[in-house]
Amino acid sequence: HSHTVKNMACSNIRYGEGVTKELSMDLQNMGARNVCLMTDKNLVKLPPVKAVLNSFSKHNINFKLYNKVRVEPTDASFKEAIDFAKKGDFDAYVAVGGGSVIDTCKAANLYSSNPEADFLDFVNAPIGKGKPVTTALKPLIAVPTTSGTGSETTGVAVFDFEHLKAKTGIASRALRPTLGMVDPLHTLHLPQRVAANSGFDVLCHALESYTALPYNMRSPCPTNPINRPAYQGSNPISDVWSKHALHILAKYLKRAVKDPGDLEARSSMHLASVFAGIGFGNAGVHLCHGMSYPIAGLVKTYHAKDYVVDHPLVPHGLSVVLTSPAVFTFTGPMCPERHLEAAAILGANIRNRKREDAGLILADTLRKFLFELDVDDGLGAVGYTKDDIPALVKGTIPQERVTKLAPRPHTEEDLTNLFEASMKIY
Amino acid sequence: HSHTVKNMACSNIRYGEGVTKELSMDLQNMGARNVCLMTDKNLVKLPPVKAVLNSFSKHNINFKLYNKVRVEPTDASFKEAIDFAKKGDFDAYVAVGGGSVIDTCKAANLYSSNPEADFLDFVNAPIGKGKPVTTALKPLIAVPTTSGTGSETTGVAVFDFEHLKAKTGIASRALRPTLGMVDPLHTLHLPQRVAANSGFDVLCHALESYTALPYNMRSPCPTNPINRPAYQGSNPISDVWSKHALHILAKYLKRAVKDPGDLEARSSMHLASVFAGIGFGNAGVHLCHGMSYPIAGLVKTYHAKDYVVDHPLVPHGLSVVLTSPAVFTFTGPMCPERHLEAAAILGANIRNRKREDAGLILADTLRKFLFELDVDDGLGAVGYTKDDIPALVKGTIPQERVTKLAPRPHTEEDLTNLFEASMKIY
Repeated sequence: HSHTVKNMACSNIRYGEGVTKELSMDLQNMGARNVCLMTDKNLVKLPPVKAVLNSFSKHNINFKLYNKVRVEPTDASFKEAIDFAKKGDFDAYVAVGGGSVIDTCKAANLYSSNPEADFLDFVNAPIGKGKPVTTALKPLIAVPTTSGTGSETTGVAVFDFEHLKAKTGIASRALRPTLGMVDPLHTLHLPQRVAANSGFDVLCHALESYTALPYNMRSPCPTNPINRPAYQGSNPISDVWSKHALHILAKYLKRAVKDPGDLEARSSMHLASVFAGIGFGNAGVHLCHGMSYPIAGLVKTYHAKDYVVDHPLVPHGLSVVLTSPAVFTFTGPMCPERHLEAAAILGANIRNRKREDAGLILADTLRKFLFELDVDDGLGAVGYTKDDIPALVKGTIPQERVTKLAPRPHTEEDLTNLFEASMKIY
Repeated sequence: HSHTVKNMACSNIRYGEGVTKELSMDLQNMGARNVCLMTDKNLVKLPPVKAVLNSFSKHNINFKLYNKVRVEPTDASFKEAIDFAKKGDFDAYVAVGGGSVIDTCKAANLYSSNPEADFLDFVNAPIGKGKPVTTALKPLIAVPTTSGTGSETTGVAVFDFEHLKAKTGIASRALRPTLGMVDPLHTLHLPQRVAANSGFDVLCHALESYTALPYNMRSPCPTNPINRPAYQGSNPISDVWSKHALHILAKYLKRAVKDPGDLEARSSMHLASVFAGIGFGNAGVHLCHGMSYPIAGLVKTYHAKDYVVDHPLVPHGLSVVLTSPAVFTFTGPMCPERHLEAAAILGANIRNRKREDAGLILADTLRKFLFELDVDDGLGAVGYTKDDIPALVKGTIPQERVTKLAPRPHTEEDLTNLFEASMKIY
C-alpha cells in the first residue's frame, strides 16, 4: 500500500485587529439561537471576553456564560463543563481563552452531542477506548487569547486524568473548531511568563513536527484512508508551517516577552501559534510533548510566576520545553539536516559544522535561547529529583500515540536518560 | 468596520506516489454508488486515467466516463458536460486532468445540483448574474495531471464566453473540490511545453498573489463576514504559500521542463502548483490573469507546440506570463520590497539595488527566466499586432473582479500601455 499524507490543515482562521466584533454575525449566519460562551474566571474580566460580550449585546445574541474552566483541565473539570453543556442544550459554542478553555469547550461540545457516550469512549487509547466520533458536533468558534496551543486549529483536547496523574486527551478531526478568530490585540494583556511559556509551546510544536518521523516512513500504512491518524508524521505541507513558525519565533519571541506593548511582536507570535498549530495538527509532535504530560501531571508544589491559579502548576509550555535540549540531542542523528536547519533559523552559525553534531548544535542553540528568556534551570528547578524519574517514565509510556512519531526509536532506558539529562539544562 | 481576512485555504490534499489507488476507497467511504469520471480524449489513454480505471474495477465502482472535455473550455463545452451530468444523476464526481477538466467538472457538479438554474445565474458579474451558490454540491475528487492551475484547491471554474470572445468564470467556495489527489507520478507524461506553460501559471499565481492589494487595504470592508469575497487580497497566510511556491519554482521549474524524467523536479512542481493554488485561491491574482483572458480568448491562428487540440490555442500559462514583465514594472512602485524579494528568490542579486527600480529588477529577472525557458517573444509571437490592442483592452475590462486586486490603480490607457509593452519582451 502506498505511503501518502492527507493535509488536515483545514481550519478556517479569521485574522485582524478587532475581528472578534464579527463573531456575533457569524453566529447569526450559522443560525445560532442559544450560544454557550466558555472562558475562565480570570479572563472573564479581561478585554477579549469583554469584546465578545459587547458584540453579543450589540447583536442581541442569546447566550449562557460558563467561566469555571480550569487552567490545565482535568477529567473532573471537563465533566463539569460537559454537564453544563448537556443541561444548556446549546446550538453553538464560543471559547475565549487559551488551550485550557478551547480544549474544555471541544469536550463539552463532543459529549453534549453524544449524550449516551461514556467519558472514556472517546479518550485516547490505551487510557480510553479511542472510539471514532461519528456524530456531527455543533459549531464552535475559538478565540485564542494566548499564543501557544494552536488549539483553534486542531482536533485535540488534552486533560489531566487525575487518578493516573497523567495527561491524556481526545483526538478527532470532528473536534476541530469551525472558525478560529485570531485578534492580535488579544495578546497584549498576557503577563510576561505566560507569553514566554506559550511561546515555548509554539517552539516545541514547530521543532517536534519538523523533526517528526516522515509520513512515508510511518508504518503500517492504513489499508483504508479513513483509518489514517490525525498525526501523520512530517510532510511537505506541515514542513512549510513548522519552518515558517520557527522563523517568526526567532525574530519575535524575545521581543514579545520583554515588551507586552510590542504589538508587532505579540501579533506575530499570535500568528506563529496558529501556523505551528496547523503544522503539528497535521504532522504531530513527539518526545517533548509526550514527556511533558507527566512533568505537568506529577507537579508537587511548584507555582508558576504570573499564573493566577489556586493549585501547583507547571505550565504546559514550560513542561514541554524543559526536555528539549536533551530530546533534540537524542534525535539529531536521525535527521541531522533538519536539526541544523532549525538551529540556523534560531540564530546558530552552522557553517563548517559537522552533521554528527547536529543534535548538540540545536540543543546548545536552545539552551542559549531559553537562558535569555529566563527559563528555570531544568526539571530540578520545578521540583523534581532523580527519585521521580521512574514515575515520569511511567507517565510517558501511555503517550505512545505521540511518542511513536519520534524520529528515533526509544526504550524506557532512553526515556530515563532523557529525563536525567533534563534535571539541569544550563 | 475592521479589516480582517479569512483563510479560505481549506482544501483537503492527499499527496503521495500512487495515491490515486486510494480514490475508490474514498468514494466508498463517501457512499458513492454512481460516479461520474471526467477527463479529455487525450488523457483517457494516459497513465493517470488508467490508474483510476484500474482502481474502479478493483473495487467495483459503478461509474460513467465523460472524455469530451475541451482544452480551454467554452460555455458550449461546459453546457455539454452539464447535460451529461444532469442525465447521469451522479452522486459523486472524479475529475482527472488539468484545469480544463477540473473546472468543467466543477461546473457540471454545480448545475446538475441546481437543475433549475440558468447558465448565467452563477457566472461572474458583469457577464453573468454572480448569484451565490446556496445548494450543497456532490463530492468532487480532483486528480490534477498538470502542475499549473491549482484548480484542485480553488472554488473557481474558468471558460471562454464565445460570443464575447472573453474568458470569464464562476467563483464560489461551494465549487472547491472535496479532495485533491496529488500524485507526483502523474506529471511524468507532461510534454515539455505543457510542463513549461503550466509552470508559468504557477509563477504568476505566486507573483500576483504576493503582490496583490493587501487584505487590509481592500475597500469597502464587507459589513457582514458572509459577504467577504473569495479573493481577499494578500495576507499573512497566503503570503506563506505564495513565497514557498516561488522558492520551489526557482529551484525546480527549469529542471522539470528540460528533463521529463526528473521525478524530484516534476514532483516538486506538482506541489508548487498546489501551494500557489492555496495562496492565490485565498488572496487572488490581478493584472497578468485579468489581461490573459482576452489574450487566450481572441486567439487567431496560433497553435501551441505539444498541445493535441484541433483549434488555435494560446495556452493559459503562456497567455498569463507574456505580460508579466510589463505588469510588474508597472506595479513595482506600490510594494517595492515584495518585488525585490520575489526577484531575489528568482535569482537576482538585489544587493545595493534601489527600491525605485524594484519593478524593473523583477521584470528583468523574469525576462531572463522566460528566455531560458524558450518562451515566445511577446504577444507579437503568438499572433497579435498593435491593431489588436483596443480589443485586448476591451476584453480585460470585464475582468474587474480580478484586476481590482492589482496593487496599483489603472486606467484603460494604462492597460493599453501594458499590452503595447508586452508585444515584444526580450
